[in-house]
Amino acid sequence: MSRTLRILVVHGPNLNLLGTREPEIYGTTTLEEIDAMLRERAKASRAEIESFQSNHEGALIDRIQQAGSRIEGLLINPGALTHTSVALRDALAALAVPIVEVHLSNIHRREAFRRHSYVSDVALGVITGFGAQSYSLGLEALLDALRV
Amino acid sequence: MSRTLRILVVHGPNLNLLGTREPEIYGTTTLEEIDAMLRERAKASRAEIESFQSNHEGALIDRIQQAGSRIEGLLINPGALTHTSVALRDALAALAVPIVEVHLSNIHRREAFRRHSYVSDVALGVITGFGAQSYSLGLEALLDALRV
Amino acid sequence: MSRTLRILVVHGPNLNLLGTREPEIYGTTTLEEIDAMLRERAKASRAEIESFQSNHEGALIDRIQQAGSRIEGLLINPGALTHTSVALRDALAALAVPIVEVHLSNIHRREAFRRHSYVSDVALGVITGFGAQSYSLGLEALLDALRV
Amino acid sequence: MSRTLRILVVHGPNLNLLGTREPEIYGTTTLEEIDAMLRERAKASRAEIESFQSNHEGALIDRIQQAGSRIEGLLINPGALTHTSVALRDALAALAVPIVEVHLSNIHRREAFRRHSYVSDVALGVITGFGAQSYSLGLEALLDALRV
Amino acid sequence: MSRTLRILVVHGPNLNLLGTREPEIYGTTTLEEIDAMLRERAKASRAEIESFQSNHEGALIDRIQQAGSRIEGLLINPGALTHTSVALRDALAALAVPIVEVHLSNIHRREAFRRHSYVSDVALGVITGFGAQSYSLGLEALLDALRV
Amino acid sequence: MSRTLRILVVHGPNLNLLGTREPEIYGTTTLEEIDAMLRERAKASRAEIESFQSNHEGALIDRIQQAGSRIEGLLINPGALTHTSVALRDALAALAVPIVEVHLSNIHRREAFRRHSYVSDVALGVITGFGAQSYSLGLEALLDALRV
Amino acid sequence: MSRTLRILVVHGPNLNLLGTREPEIYGTTTLEEIDAMLRERAKASRAEIESFQSNHEGALIDRIQQAGSRIEGLLINPGALTHTSVALRDALAALAVPIVEVHLSNIHRREAFRRHSYVSDVALGVITGFGAQSYSLGLEALLDALRV
Amino acid sequence: MSRTLRILVVHGPNLNLLGTREPEIYGTTTLEEIDAMLRERAKASRAEIESFQSNHEGALIDRIQQAGSRIEGLLINPGALTHTSVALRDALAALAVPIVEVHLSNIHRREAFRRHSYVSDVALGVITGFGAQSYSLGLEALLDALRV
Amino acid sequence: MSRTLRILVVHGPNLNLLGTREPEIYGTTTLEEIDAMLRERAKASRAEIESFQSNHEGALIDRIQQAGSRIEGLLINPGALTHTSVALRDALAALAVPIVEVHLSNIHRREAFRRHSYVSDVALGVITGFGAQSYSLGLEALLDALRV
Amino acid sequence: MSRTLRILVVHGPNLNLLGTREPEIYGTTTLEEIDAMLRERAKASRAEIESFQSNHEGALIDRIQQAGSRIEGLLINPGALTHTSVALRDALAALAVPIVEVHLSNIHRREAFRRHSYVSDVALGVITGFGAQSYSLGLEALLDALRV
Amino acid sequence: MSRTLRILVVHGPNLNLLGTREPEIYGTTTLEEIDAMLRERAKASRAEIESFQSNHEGALIDRIQQAGSRIEGLLINPGALTHTSVALRDALAALAVPIVEVHLSNIHRREAFRRHSYVSDVALGVITGFGAQSYSLGLEALLDALRV
Amino acid sequence: MSRTLRILVVHGPNLNLLGTREPEIYGTTTLEEIDAMLRERAKASRAEIESFQSNHEGALIDRIQQAGSRIEGLLINPGALTHTSVALRDALAALAVPIVEVHLSNIHRREAFRRHSYVSDVALGVITGFGAQSYSLGLEALLDALRV
Repeated sequence: MSRTLRILVVHGPNLNLLGTREPEIYGTTTLEEIDAMLRERAKASRAEIESFQSNHEGALIDRIQQAGSRIEGLLINPGALTHTSVALRDALAALAVPIVEVHLSNIHRREAFRRHSYVSDVALGVITGFGAQSYSLGLEALLDALRV
Repeated sequence: MSRTLRILVVHGPNLNLLGTREPEIYGTTTLEEIDAMLRERAKASRAEIESFQSNHEGALIDRIQQAGSRIEGLLINPGALTHTSVALRDALAALAVPIVEVHLSNIHRREAFRRHSYVSDVALGVITGFGAQSYSLGLEALLDALRV
Repeated sequence: MSRTLRILVVHGPNLNLLGTREPEIYGTTTLEEIDAMLRERAKASRAEIESFQSNHEGALIDRIQQAGSRIEGLLINPGALTHTSVALRDALAALAVPIVEVHLSNIHRREAFRRHSYVSDVALGVITGFGAQSYSLGLEALLDALRV
Repeated sequence: MSRTLRILVVHGPNLNLLGTREPEIYGTTTLEEIDAMLRERAKASRAEIESFQSNHEGALIDRIQQAGSRIEGLLINPGALTHTSVALRDALAALAVPIVEVHLSNIHRREAFRRHSYVSDVALGVITGFGAQSYSLGLEALLDALRV
Repeated sequence: MSRTLRILVVHGPNLNLLGTREPEIYGTTTLEEIDAMLRERAKASRAEIESFQSNHEGALIDRIQQAGSRIEGLLINPGALTHTSVALRDALAALAVPIVEVHLSNIHRREAFRRHSYVSDVALGVITGFGAQSYSLGLEALLDALRV
Repeated sequence: MSRTLRILVVHGPNLNLLGTREPEIYGTTTLEEIDAMLRERAKASRAEIESFQSNHEGALIDRIQQAGSRIEGLLINPGALTHTSVALRDALAALAVPIVEVHLSNIHRREAFRRHSYVSDVALGVITGFGAQSYSLGLEALLDALRV
Repeated sequence: MSRTLRILVVHGPNLNLLGTREPEIYGTTTLEEIDAMLRERAKASRAEIESFQSNHEGALIDRIQQAGSRIEGLLINPGALTHTSVALRDALAALAVPIVEVHLSNIHRREAFRRHSYVSDVALGVITGFGAQSYSLGLEALLDALRV
Repeated sequence: MSRTLRILVVHGPNLNLLGTREPEIYGTTTLEEIDAMLRERAKASRAEIESFQSNHEGALIDRIQQAGSRIEGLLINPGALTHTSVALRDALAALAVPIVEVHLSNIHRREAFRRHSYVSDVALGVITGFGAQSYSLGLEALLDALRV
Repeated sequence: MSRTLRILVVHGPNLNLLGTREPEIYGTTTLEEIDAMLRERAKASRAEIESFQSNHEGALIDRIQQAGSRIEGLLINPGALTHTSVALRDALAALAVPIVEVHLSNIHRREAFRRHSYVSDVALGVITGFGAQSYSLGLEALLDALRV
Repeated sequence: MSRTLRILVVHGPNLNLLGTREPEIYGTTTLEEIDAMLRERAKASRAEIESFQSNHEGALIDRIQQAGSRIEGLLINPGALTHTSVALRDALAALAVPIVEVHLSNIHRREAFRRHSYVSDVALGVITGFGAQSYSLGLEALLDALRV
Repeated sequence: MSRTLRILVVHGPNLNLLGTREPEIYGTTTLEEIDAMLRERAKASRAEIESFQSNHEGALIDRIQQAGSRIEGLLINPGALTHTSVALRDALAALAVPIVEVHLSNIHRREAFRRHSYVSDVALGVITGFGAQSYSLGLEALLDALRV
Repeated sequence: MSRTLRILVVHGPNLNLLGTREPEIYGTTTLEEIDAMLRERAKASRAEIESFQSNHEGALIDRIQQAGSRIEGLLINPGALTHTSVALRDALAALAVPIVEVHLSNIHRREAFRRHSYVSDVALGVITGFGAQSYSLGLEALLDALRV
């Protein structure tokens, strides 16, 4: 299809610290670098990326609601809210577009409370453990699902 | 008693989407329509309604704290925060006025994690499952409790 | 619609003691007064109320089965059977009419074993904690659902 | 050592109500009085205190991130977020300075859900149950750890 | 052996509704048809069937006790009491004859609370999921056990 | 005190079988013998015993309600209802007189599901494991509590 | 219907030991005798039986896959794999024909870990506890379901 | 029988405080008074009482072992060790004589961790909730069991 | 780097059925098509793919052990063994090369027992829910990790 | 107030090893040094310290009972008994004076079984994680509570 | 006794890798060396060793069944099947000879899921944590049991 | 090495009863015989054994602490304290020498509460189920570990 696809990329709490915070877990790439990489990759597929990060659950929900019908897909790393926020889940479940959930670290190798996600069963699929590449794989998966 | 009763109505995250979001679960009435209906009904009982919706837990708590001693009762649909927010619970428990908790959908027919409420045991009572009417029944219950 | 609605009101075990038993939990209104109040309210909506109380699970099930297709709605306070009777649940699930579950006390403020209800997910909705008024709110909710 | 130590004091949701909210649990000292007391005590040890309270999880995280490398220690009463916020925990874990967690009330004497803390295992230590004095003991512990 | 075997068939709560209640789960055969089918089958094996249905746990127990030493085997579909009645279990455990437990629907495909049976470990065996045929298979199993 | 004390003795489901049912667990004394023994013992203390056994939860509740203010104490062996009946518990909790719970067998040596009692925390005390003597010890305990 | 029905009978691990292994639990009939009995019974209904036993989970799955569309029904005693094999469950779920699960012993009277079956909710029904007769009842149930 | 029965009475930790410690839970009778009462009662039945109290688990076990074959029965209030000591349980299980377990307070009305006893299933029976009288009822039960 | 990378692709039980088995869950692409697609993609990155499918846990382990030091990376869809096989996990943990775990369906939307994986915490990362594309994303992630 | 306060300091099992045992967890200060430090600090507040360490639960209980009414406060590090001793808890609960619980290490960073304390909810407050300083902070908290 | 004892030694999945796989957990001795050591040791006691290793659960079961009555004892390291295989357990339970279970590593120091063994309660005894020596101790224990 | 190894053998509560207490579980060998056997065996390896038994947790801990650096290894059967004593565990963890845990009976065949050991993960290894021989195997394992 030849229409430009609009993708919203959402980063949850503390992801603005990427590259500085606990690099042995989260790597040294910054969030700006990730966003740039995603924009680059999207361009090749005639897609447009808009990015949003916040430490506020409410601000994330506001942004997702506003995106509403103006996007074709959503890529999200919900950060710590993955494990605690039913409100974020509900905002995502209210979207009519496919959602891909990504995580930088392999959450199965960490504390037990990181094993449960409120988002996974309202997402199309989940990618976890590949550092910054989790995002680019996620974008690829999302574009692929949208092009079908 | 002849004094005008002041009631604060609080709507939690994602309830601003009412009427559009998953209508098979939440119905087609909008939040504005619900607020209007509540104002109408309150007027008949010489009560005044003030409404507040936010996707931000913190904003909901701020609003409840500000209401403080200036209200006689509180009607709340905490949305997804019902199941996750101890902070909201604490803000409610700090109020000296009766609280009624309402839910649009029957939370007992949904995911297991929706069965537990942090609010119910600091509320006077709970009404769940009657769509928009849950609010008007809740207002009636609250006014009744206040008039005694 | 102009047809007379027939409503069966069912009271579970120990509710015949209302007004005398643990009044600090259940209030001072008697079951007769509640039934009278419901009949009054129903009349205003051209509905007819029939009431039944028993301490026998089997008798409650018999009565619900006999009501069968001769009623349009059911209002039930299952009392302690709320938490233990799958047989009562099955009798209710076999009914083709809407069911509203009510409780006098706020079951969320009591023993942990009162937090689970076998009835809630076969009911339209649940009202809990408003004393005798739980019944009148429940009747209103039921009539409203039937009039739609 | 003779350098001035900079300490950030963080107060979670509803702590702005201190002195008025449920005084039988939380005491009658206000938050302003606690902050003044901490400033006084810090001065004696050539330390500087900066205080921050918010009902917003996101605002607390923002503030902790901004403190970043500009502080030598952090004293926090996470309030209700103690029990629910992985995002706050992650913000604290990303700090390179020692953290002391304090609680006014003895959380072991309250509801079961207050027994678990997401903060305790990223903190140096925990002090709970001594009312306003929990803060001054916490400050003392923090200064002591920093002076070693 | 040439003696006539006497078999008591016991049907628990709501089974009198068979054929009308939730036919997509329980099928369209009535309880009378099942009893007739069992009597027919028994006759071929020189056995006699006596049937009893009640919605009353107590009445079921009374009937089982009265059968006492006057029967050689018992076939029971305890219905919802399967999952909740220790009293029924005790009445069965007090019998000296073999017991076969049957269920119309496959209880493993239904709600989690239907997975546990208080009867199964005092029974000889269990047959579940074959609709009305569960009864005839159960009778066959019982007769076979008695003929050995 | 010289007034005659009236004691209601309540026996739950299957206890009418005493002496015949599983004697290796419950002993060989019949219920009639137990009642006679209790009457004898009561007489010596100027007390009167009235006994009631039923396999029907509802009948037990009816009887306890009727006793109401006409008795000074209640001795109960709830049988299997011990572990399953909230309704029986509620009927007992509504009584204003002391209650003693007894069991023939030592329930701690049996199936795990017999370890929990819905009655014990509304009773004055519990006696378990001494066969028929559990009843006479229970009566003694009850009379003692009433004479104080 | 007059077509010959083809039935695959599958026996899980250790069932080749039947007749010798723990006869107090599993009886003295051998697997060959069971297969012969089933063939005999099938013939009377114009059905054909093919039997397969293996101690290898993989071999059982291979065999079930190969049967594919060439059978009309499957009778299985999964043995110990009942409780542990999701792979076997998946192979069964992929079949388009009805499945009947049987067990020789009454699994409800044995170790707790034998109470859960991964197979039961993908089967039509379950028969447990009747020794070798469980198989013939299971075949009868299967043929009956296929003839309808 | 005419032989003198020797009974060892064992009191666990903190029972030496009886009469002073938390009298609203444990009553005002002292341990000396209880022992005197038991000796008196025993004398009437030609039995001899020896008492032992210790706050040391090890001392209690030593004493029970020494009693060995020189006693005919044991009456024990294990106090807090009821809920934690497998070693005490093992010492009791090694005795060849009947054991009666008693508790002053009704342990079912207290903290959840007091609901489990390591002693109950190696005892003949249990008496709980009757204050000092629990001991005399326990002695009576023990003597009765020994006289049979 | 210019060396050819050797990748082993392992498919667990029932994956040979792909394209025919439950296509509404697993899609219509066959395993051969997936393998061809992976070979194609690998060629572009100068990598070589070898594929292996088996329904036998032991055969999968044998194959993984044989690969030993002759491969640079492993891509695995363990199928149902994901949830049950510690032996497969151990074989993977013994490998010195990076492992990527993939699943066709979103396992978070299915039965609860599919939520736990014995493989995830010995893998580099996990990709779930994107149908056949899960494999190509996994290969990409693996190659990327190897090229670093 | 000008009266001399008497404080009992109690050290549980293995604390006599302080300074030598696992110094990476417990630090290098010896128990004698801690006691000296506490005596010093107490003197400044006109308080007297008496210390007691034992590896015997019973000896600790004996000592606490003897202190009885002759002390004004108690500072305790129960060591491993924190997690296992209901008897110690009961001895503490029987005291009429305030109790402060301290731990050298942060028990929230260690094994799961160290997360539960039987002492915390009978203490005034708890201080954990500051090494030897936990004791001095605890003493300060205790003196403060006593001076009010 | 002078007869030659025949012992079957069974090694579960991945044990063929011994000496190479994760040597920090499993040591550097190879399986061949262990078998040689066992044969040597057996010879001294006039016993004969036969060894078998497989990664296939089914092959292990086949081998154990074939050993049947031709061995006097079995020494097994079930590897990962320890924790997951009920089928292996059943094969072992069907043997009439004593079984000794051994583990190289101390399974109590590893992942939680390695703490449960399906084999231990059908074995004579268990030896864990002594590396290759676990096998020789196990053989000694087995021979000792057989010589008695 | 030619130095004499000093081994402390520790026996927990009730082990002094060996040979008399429940011989069907613990065998008929006395503790003296076990100690003699161990001394004999040690002599052959130029090792010296010192034995200690106590029913007092505190005395066991005292003894282990005193052994301190004067021993090279410790062999312990903690008896019932295995399952309940964190204090004993801590005393063992503080030792710098290898520890072997032994049990006479197979604890996996007994009550569920005997399945957990607080000692196993601070021990080198565990031997359970071989009666008195568990001790000699344990000594052998310990000597072997020390000789390496």
